Amino acid sequence: MRLRKKPWIAEALTGFTNIVQNPGEELKGKWADLFGNQLPLYVELGTGRGKFIAGMGEQYQDKANFIGIEAQKDVLYDAAVRARENELTNVRLLVFNVNELLTIFAPGEIDRLYINFCDPWPKNRHAKRRLTHARFLEKYQTVLKAGGQLCFKTDNRPLFEFSLEQFSQFGLAIDNITYDLHNNGFAGNVMTEYESRFSALGQPIHRCEVTFQNS
Amino acid sequence: MRLRKKPWIAEALTGFTNIVQNPGEELKGKWADLFGNQLPLYVELGTGRGKFIAGMGEQYQDKANFIGIEAQKDVLYDAAVRARENELTNVRLLVFNVNELLTIFAPGEIDRLYINFCDPWPKNRHAKRRLTHARFLEKYQTVLKAGGQLCFKTDNRPLFEFSLEQFSQFGLAIDNITYDLHNNGFAGNVMTEYESRFSALGQPIHRCEVTFQNS
Repeated sequence: MRLRKKPWIAEALTGFTNIVQNPGEELKGKWADLFGNQLPLYVELGTGRGKFIAGMGEQYQDKANFIGIEAQKDVLYDAAVRARENELTNVRLLVFNVNELLTIFAPGEIDRLYINFCDPWPKNRHAKRRLTHARFLEKYQTVLKAGGQLCFKTDNRPLFEFSLEQFSQFGLAIDNITYDLHNNGFAGNVMTEYESRFSALGQPIHRCEVTFQNS
Repeated sequence: MRLRKKPWIAEALTGFTNIVQNPGEELKGKWADLFGNQLPLYVELGTGRGKFIAGMGEQYQDKANFIGIEAQKDVLYDAAVRARENELTNVRLLVFNVNELLTIFAPGEIDRLYINFCDPWPKNRHAKRRLTHARFLEKYQTVLKAGGQLCFKTDNRPLFEFSLEQFSQFGLAIDNITYDLHNNGFAGNVMTEYESRFSALGQPIHRCEVTFQNS
């Protein structure tokens, strides 16, 4: 996600050090300590403005801890404000590149991953950059515990098809496939900013879950 | 599939009674006896002119027995000729309605089902007639043995999407999803008549396999 540079954000974010972090290797395997409990760890890759993770943090209060990962620090400002306003002690936001996932999470440390409306990288030569490419699935398999899940949403049809192919080639069990999430009776869906905007225009949202067996 | 009425076919087919049959309940659970061996039983639903089943029968000689089911007797003439010309003793063709599957197959009798380019029944109110609708999946679950598979091909995108949703709602494991079978390195694909014709026009072919666990 791109947004206009807002020079005041860097300073404003200094007020949110308990929520927003630049994590390092020292936190690997220690996330339960940081949250101070043993609740399941759910991680969103590409958190953007944080509407999803704030909504989920609220819906799962006392049920799960949430980490939102986003490469661009400034985008996280809205997410940080949401988390603070809703007094969500179970949400942390990380300024971090998904490529380096293995440096901050120990094997089997994560219970569930969420990928929502990631960049479709439409050119074939960029396929490896798609967050559902096998080279990422390998990383997810490491950081997820056995039986851990990846929940995936997109409105991009070619990306969804590519992803289903990748999941099945990787030998993952695929569940709850829907090509039209909002007309499929799925309960408890929390919309992202992007999702609200595009589904209002009549764009169907595609979703599925996959389960990793060998961590 | 519709074809022009050819009055000579009914008579011609009388020469193929060893290949083409109107089966009754008396054959339920007895297919291995009829083939005279214990090879796996593979059944195609909607055999049409039989290019697929004849090709498969040849590819799997001494490895599997094949039954092709087709509601319209006359269509089967070409299939019968193919089977005889290739001396395929592992192929039988049944004039039969798929709705009645349970009357001629015993629970767990079938190892694999094939559905190729079935009628997409595009209107929502006809969804129940699609061969991948849950009401058919229930029947397949009965006649397939535990671990039995359904292999599904279609060039109809909405039908493929509907089918993936039905499969995942039914709790089936979905494998080898491809949206473009002919450009995906899939080995051993046998084309149907329809598939040859439409893929030659550049129409991509979609395919997946699903596995039934509880028979």
